[in-house]
Amino acid sequence: MDFSSKLLENAVEEISYLPGIGKRTALRLALHLLNQPLERTTDLAQALVNLKTEIKHCEKCNNISDSKTCEICANPNRNHALVCVVEDIRDVMAIENTNQYKGVYHVLGGKISPIDGIGPNQLEIKSLIEKVSSGSVDELIFALSSTMEGDTTNFYIYNQIKEFTITTSTIARGISVGDELEFADQVSLGRSIVDRVPFQNSLKN
Amino acid sequence: MDFSSKLLENAVEEISYLPGIGKRTALRLALHLLNQPLERTTDLAQALVNLKTEIKHCEKCNNISDSKTCEICANPNRNHALVCVVEDIRDVMAIENTNQYKGVYHVLGGKISPIDGIGPNQLEIKSLIEKVSSGSVDELIFALSSTMEGDTTNFYIYNQIKEFTITTSTIARGISVGDELEFADQVSLGRSIVDRVPFQNSLKN
Repeated sequence: MDFSSKLLENAVEEISYLPGIGKRTALRLALHLLNQPLERTTDLAQALVNLKTEIKHCEKCNNISDSKTCEICANPNRNHALVCVVEDIRDVMAIENTNQYKGVYHVLGGKISPIDGIGPNQLEIKSLIEKVSSGSVDELIFALSSTMEGDTTNFYIYNQIKEFTITTSTIARGISVGDELEFADQVSLGRSIVDRVPFQNSLKN
Repeated sequence: MDFSSKLLENAVEEISYLPGIGKRTALRLALHLLNQPLERTTDLAQALVNLKTEIKHCEKCNNISDSKTCEICANPNRNHALVCVVEDIRDVMAIENTNQYKGVYHVLGGKISPIDGIGPNQLEIKSLIEKVSSGSVDELIFALSSTMEGDTTNFYIYNQIKEFTITTSTIARGISVGDELEFADQVSLGRSIVDRVPFQNSLKN
């Protein structure tokens, strides 16, 4: 693209570094900001810089937090011996939205993925092992996505903690509530039969 | 969405004010920036603020420019008596990319659209009329999109300048080069027959 303005070109280039945003969309966003009051741009710029410079990671669970300990870890009403291992804050938000979980979390910050150059040392695995070995954990729930990377990460962690006497579990895989059986994928349907639960359980929710 | 962090919530909210970006995409972008070096965020923020505070509009054609007169208007090799009326800088860039146009532009900054509260006074129409009445324009090419708003704007400007002895034209509408006739829309096909051109013309490009 041939821009008449270096300022515009520069802004478009910076915006297009964001994932999923090409040059054309970036130009649309830049021109949109140009048509808006100055505060819209300065507020956006300030919010991004504040996020990057002031954000903390909870020293207990590694979740994104404004303070040294996140709200969930600081809540005495939660079960701190029940720890759910997740990839990032989006998974925490998704599980919190269900209102079904009263334990705490451990945010790994990603999954083991050699192809992306992410090994165990780039993730918060060491602190999880320490947490388990200190004896403060009764049950660990693996809630990573069921991809090869997720399974590898689960297995890596499991190997490190199997010597400790804690319960380990993974979230149930099966047919989504409301889904038609005929359209379900084979693997999920197969798992849902193998991991069937007592009928009485389904009456609770 | 329930965020564990005010900083994150604030950043997501500011990003989601951008057109076409919802809360979920905004969260993905914010988390992406969190995983990148600080410079990525500060460069983006600075580029946006610079764009908004330092950008100028060319005093001749109203196009976005880094200086008082844009590169196109400052170019003595262009035909300054041939003026192409466009909506915004994207149209200028699109026409410049064709390498077929050697005149200059007049950027209106939008189209007359009562439903969006945009009247002639919000657009750079007065300066266009002055340019025409000063006698410096030989031909005006209307290159607005062929929507109701575009046609209204064309007609409004035409009514103000028809007293002056200049040529007015609109860009040709017809079948796109490479399109199959059977899939073309009726209106474009009809126009392409009514506005047919000498066969020799088609041999030039």
